[in-house]
Amino acid sequence: MAGKVLILMGSKSDAEVMGEASRILAALGVPCTTTVASAHRSPGRTQKLAREAEGQGYSVIIAGAGAAAHLAGVVAAETVLPVIGVPLASSPLSGLDSLLSTAQMPGGVPVATMAVGKAGAQNAAYLAAQILALSDPRLRKTLAERRRQMAEAVDAAAEDVR
Amino acid sequence: MAGKVLILMGSKSDAEVMGEASRILAALGVPCTTTVASAHRSPGRTQKLAREAEGQGYSVIIAGAGAAAHLAGVVAAETVLPVIGVPLASSPLSGLDSLLSTAQMPGGVPVATMAVGKAGAQNAAYLAAQILALSDPRLRKTLAERRRQMAEAVDAAAEDVR
Amino acid sequence: MAGKVLILMGSKSDAEVMGEASRILAALGVPCTTTVASAHRSPGRTQKLAREAEGQGYSVIIAGAGAAAHLAGVVAAETVLPVIGVPLASSPLSGLDSLLSTAQMPGGVPVATMAVGKAGAQNAAYLAAQILALSDPRLRKTLAERRRQMAEAVDAAAEDVR
Amino acid sequence: MAGKVLILMGSKSDAEVMGEASRILAALGVPCTTTVASAHRSPGRTQKLAREAEGQGYSVIIAGAGAAAHLAGVVAAETVLPVIGVPLASSPLSGLDSLLSTAQMPGGVPVATMAVGKAGAQNAAYLAAQILALSDPRLRKTLAERRRQMAEAVDAAAEDVR
Amino acid sequence: MAGKVLILMGSKSDAEVMGEASRILAALGVPCTTTVASAHRSPGRTQKLAREAEGQGYSVIIAGAGAAAHLAGVVAAETVLPVIGVPLASSPLSGLDSLLSTAQMPGGVPVATMAVGKAGAQNAAYLAAQILALSDPRLRKTLAERRRQMAEAVDAAAEDVR
Amino acid sequence: MAGKVLILMGSKSDAEVMGEASRILAALGVPCTTTVASAHRSPGRTQKLAREAEGQGYSVIIAGAGAAAHLAGVVAAETVLPVIGVPLASSPLSGLDSLLSTAQMPGGVPVATMAVGKAGAQNAAYLAAQILALSDPRLRKTLAERRRQMAEAVDAAAEDVR
Amino acid sequence: MAGKVLILMGSKSDAEVMGEASRILAALGVPCTTTVASAHRSPGRTQKLAREAEGQGYSVIIAGAGAAAHLAGVVAAETVLPVIGVPLASSPLSGLDSLLSTAQMPGGVPVATMAVGKAGAQNAAYLAAQILALSDPRLRKTLAERRRQMAEAVDAAAEDVR
Amino acid sequence: MAGKVLILMGSKSDAEVMGEASRILAALGVPCTTTVASAHRSPGRTQKLAREAEGQGYSVIIAGAGAAAHLAGVVAAETVLPVIGVPLASSPLSGLDSLLSTAQMPGGVPVATMAVGKAGAQNAAYLAAQILALSDPRLRKTLAERRRQMAEAVDAAAEDVR
Repeated sequence: MAGKVLILMGSKSDAEVMGEASRILAALGVPCTTTVASAHRSPGRTQKLAREAEGQGYSVIIAGAGAAAHLAGVVAAETVLPVIGVPLASSPLSGLDSLLSTAQMPGGVPVATMAVGKAGAQNAAYLAAQILALSDPRLRKTLAERRRQMAEAVDAAAEDVR
Repeated sequence: MAGKVLILMGSKSDAEVMGEASRILAALGVPCTTTVASAHRSPGRTQKLAREAEGQGYSVIIAGAGAAAHLAGVVAAETVLPVIGVPLASSPLSGLDSLLSTAQMPGGVPVATMAVGKAGAQNAAYLAAQILALSDPRLRKTLAERRRQMAEAVDAAAEDVR
Repeated sequence: MAGKVLILMGSKSDAEVMGEASRILAALGVPCTTTVASAHRSPGRTQKLAREAEGQGYSVIIAGAGAAAHLAGVVAAETVLPVIGVPLASSPLSGLDSLLSTAQMPGGVPVATMAVGKAGAQNAAYLAAQILALSDPRLRKTLAERRRQMAEAVDAAAEDVR
Repeated sequence: MAGKVLILMGSKSDAEVMGEASRILAALGVPCTTTVASAHRSPGRTQKLAREAEGQGYSVIIAGAGAAAHLAGVVAAETVLPVIGVPLASSPLSGLDSLLSTAQMPGGVPVATMAVGKAGAQNAAYLAAQILALSDPRLRKTLAERRRQMAEAVDAAAEDVR
Repeated sequence: MAGKVLILMGSKSDAEVMGEASRILAALGVPCTTTVASAHRSPGRTQKLAREAEGQGYSVIIAGAGAAAHLAGVVAAETVLPVIGVPLASSPLSGLDSLLSTAQMPGGVPVATMAVGKAGAQNAAYLAAQILALSDPRLRKTLAERRRQMAEAVDAAAEDVR
Repeated sequence: MAGKVLILMGSKSDAEVMGEASRILAALGVPCTTTVASAHRSPGRTQKLAREAEGQGYSVIIAGAGAAAHLAGVVAAETVLPVIGVPLASSPLSGLDSLLSTAQMPGGVPVATMAVGKAGAQNAAYLAAQILALSDPRLRKTLAERRRQMAEAVDAAAEDVR
Repeated sequence: MAGKVLILMGSKSDAEVMGEASRILAALGVPCTTTVASAHRSPGRTQKLAREAEGQGYSVIIAGAGAAAHLAGVVAAETVLPVIGVPLASSPLSGLDSLLSTAQMPGGVPVATMAVGKAGAQNAAYLAAQILALSDPRLRKTLAERRRQMAEAVDAAAEDVR
Repeated sequence: MAGKVLILMGSKSDAEVMGEASRILAALGVPCTTTVASAHRSPGRTQKLAREAEGQGYSVIIAGAGAAAHLAGVVAAETVLPVIGVPLASSPLSGLDSLLSTAQMPGGVPVATMAVGKAGAQNAAYLAAQILALSDPRLRKTLAERRRQMAEAVDAAAEDVR
């Protein structure tokens, strides 16, 4: 099996949006663990989770946070596992702040940044699965199948709209 | 060996910035091919490259583009390989346009978005390597070693600044 | 007769806003077909629709999409029919993302970009009709008449406000 | 013959960027006239040009302006010819102002908005030609041929980059 | 008497916000007329109102509009009366579009731009009164008195908050 | 005579841009005084200048400042003379900061905000003159004549561009 | 005892958000006074409060304001006490205006700018306490304890999410 | 003596801008140490510096960083000393990214955010001194004297401009 995914979120209030990621991973048959870790309010916990992730068998880390969203960057600084950042729209600035805080990482420490909000949480799961699928042909097949289903859903929607 | 990387750029004028990615991959010992493919001026070529990448043994695709940067998204729509997008600052809007065009992908088709410009091109290479390292312990060690060197470079810079 | 219009939207959830375009075209007596096609979730369908539009007698294509709105650009890359893009405000970034993704096309592949949201959907219909009216004097008369009605509506509103 | 194009610009200092449009129209064999007309400093002239364009045989109007770029909108209010707006980056705000001023037109009076700056000026010419080509099969062929050349130029660039 | 004020708004739906201006002018004893005039849907009416304002005894013109808010600029182009622009937040872009469209006027044709929305409508009235007060000592006294009342209202609010 | 204008700028480094205002006022025959006053580094001086302006015979105050441009607002709080604000592009944020700081005034204390930079400085002078012209028919004639010259300059530019 | 905190807000309508600051200060045992003072509607009151704060035993001033948020800057210009600015999201521009108006202070007169809205009001209290704690070991202990509680709350949230 | 200041910067290339802070602190007689510490490339070093700062007698920490500027936030998470953040304009997005990344901190962990770039570096020094001056009457006097000099410099500039 290719690996499992660790999902971090900066606050319990992010659980609804980040639940999109765990639901999709579950549907794809990818094991994941979801927990809360704040870059600012629990830096020690965040660092520990990031450092131990590889040893605990995680292959990819997803980190969702809003406002000055440092979580993904702080986690990325502690591991060479791929880190996926989901900017959340939790401040009055509607996610422009979290998008820039997540995406504009300096050279050397990448964060794979997703869209702001729900679409981003969903895509974090899909990207994690696409990464794991590199060494898991069955998962790759599942993903390709999903894409076919998405295309079919567009066909069906086209029928409805007519 | 874990795999190789396909680097696409939307225009020849992006070669200098995207060269950051190929240089780093070379230094990490990761084989890569760089080519030009425009989502808009050569959609057939882009589609073909994206569809055939998996069959040709590529594991990760990096796509750099500016302005209405559709390249990474268009490539991502044709493959379940991980696609990394590098927004370039080639229009008068300084990369805000390419960042939003690359990052704000709809649920189902992720693009791992990097920072605007050079730092983004560098991190595309690092992220690609981190993904490949999941099944390449030697590469993972190289990456961990790079991180140590980065930290040491900070120590050295600290000495210089004193 | 001057031609007919193909209206594409990236998702069924865009139907309400894009319905503004079909309603106006109907009122102007311009035949149109509305369907769903996603640049990312159904790239094959989108490409096929774009490539076949000219042969099927369409003269203008309207494409509405939100977030990283690639639909209009992807369609424009496959045809030399005029393509009109409607940026939709479907992400937390309120349409700044879709506006920049639609408008900032590279030289060679134009997208006629409209305003974000409903006004844009309406104007896509008007612009399509203005284009078709170049070879349809009756439609041009209808459009000029509409403009007179708009001016009269302003007069009436001025009466109400007094 | 399908028609000719009127190119307006808000100031003589816009001539270099807007020259991209006339050069491309010339290369495509589309006749065009370029002149200066300011929405604010010469409203009478602008109105006259807009109102008389149709009678003088123009089929499409291109209007380039910077800052609070009202030119295209003001012209569009006086004609039912298709009006293409090119936002120019002439103020310290780098074209965000002209883009929003040009694109965010109210329902009823469309402006086909292009990208900010040079790419936008080029695409204004291409879009004008695509519109005229609806009733000019030879022009449509020329445009399709151009697209092929663009794709070939990408192939050539790909060779260079290798 | 110093003069009277003409209040224009681009659409009947702006009446609620722009009503702030007429209410304040009424309270200050400054006569005003409110009407609807669209820069785009009724350019002739707008031009006529702007050109005739001076002859009809108006001293200041207030123009409120949203989105690509050209109204104030178009009016300013037709008169040397002071023109005050109120950007309204009527599009999904929340008034950033109308603010830039109103404020970024080219050299030669000024628009006195106010804040987005209600505060801007209120201040348009106050600025108009401050301009008229230059030749109306009683109005100047009234305005100074209003300022004292504002300061007292702050004192009262401070008491409440304690 | 209608009155004179007080021009304030936040820093000596703003003198070049704000010189546009004094040059235009001089050309229009409107007397003006230019001085430096910082809202933050010399609040007492700024307050004194604002409070005494009316008594010293000034009719309009122009205030140019960059970054967190509080100068115009602070002056406006101390007088019921019309205050015109010129946002300058002196910080890395290119004037978006000074534009918002100048324009977004709360209800009760208006600042007539101009465009960012040179065009704004020019228009501050024109608006001041337009205000003074309300009680100075000769100045109004001069302004109307200027407008004619602007329109003629556009005609001349049109000739050059041909 | 280290000192007390003066909390200013630009309007009574800011009381709910700024109440976050006083509640936290109360919980930390730091005495504070809350009052209303507008930079624009009551400049005299604001100046007096700022100038007298030091003499009245205040050590830190917190100033919350929205839109063209000049309050913190105006206060900072009158004192060398540390001034903390809280940008409020009270205009249609969602706090981007107040953030830039508060943060972009010129060299020489600092404002310690917090996040937009509630989080900013909370952090203004924490920062004030951190400043006072420099000479109040008991307060420093309280703050360190708070941080531990925050970290524990994250642990608890992690349990809940599991 | 009140204390000393620790200045951190994310990269050696920030030394020129951040040198503004150390020069001002030196001129004010406040001891400071400047060093390099990257939140992402040397997280261990950064954490250590932040945790040990209090024990080593530092009273205030200044942290300057660009792009996804996490440095100040990461430091603030490890200490209850006041942390001042200076957003630097080192990416193509001109400091909007670093400003939002620094300012938008979640409730509980404040960062005192300064302006983007040089003015921000200067003000970080002034704010640090203002904080230290709370328990250092001589420093407070020096700061008050500086303010007087700033006001005098404005007077002198006013003379020059005349």
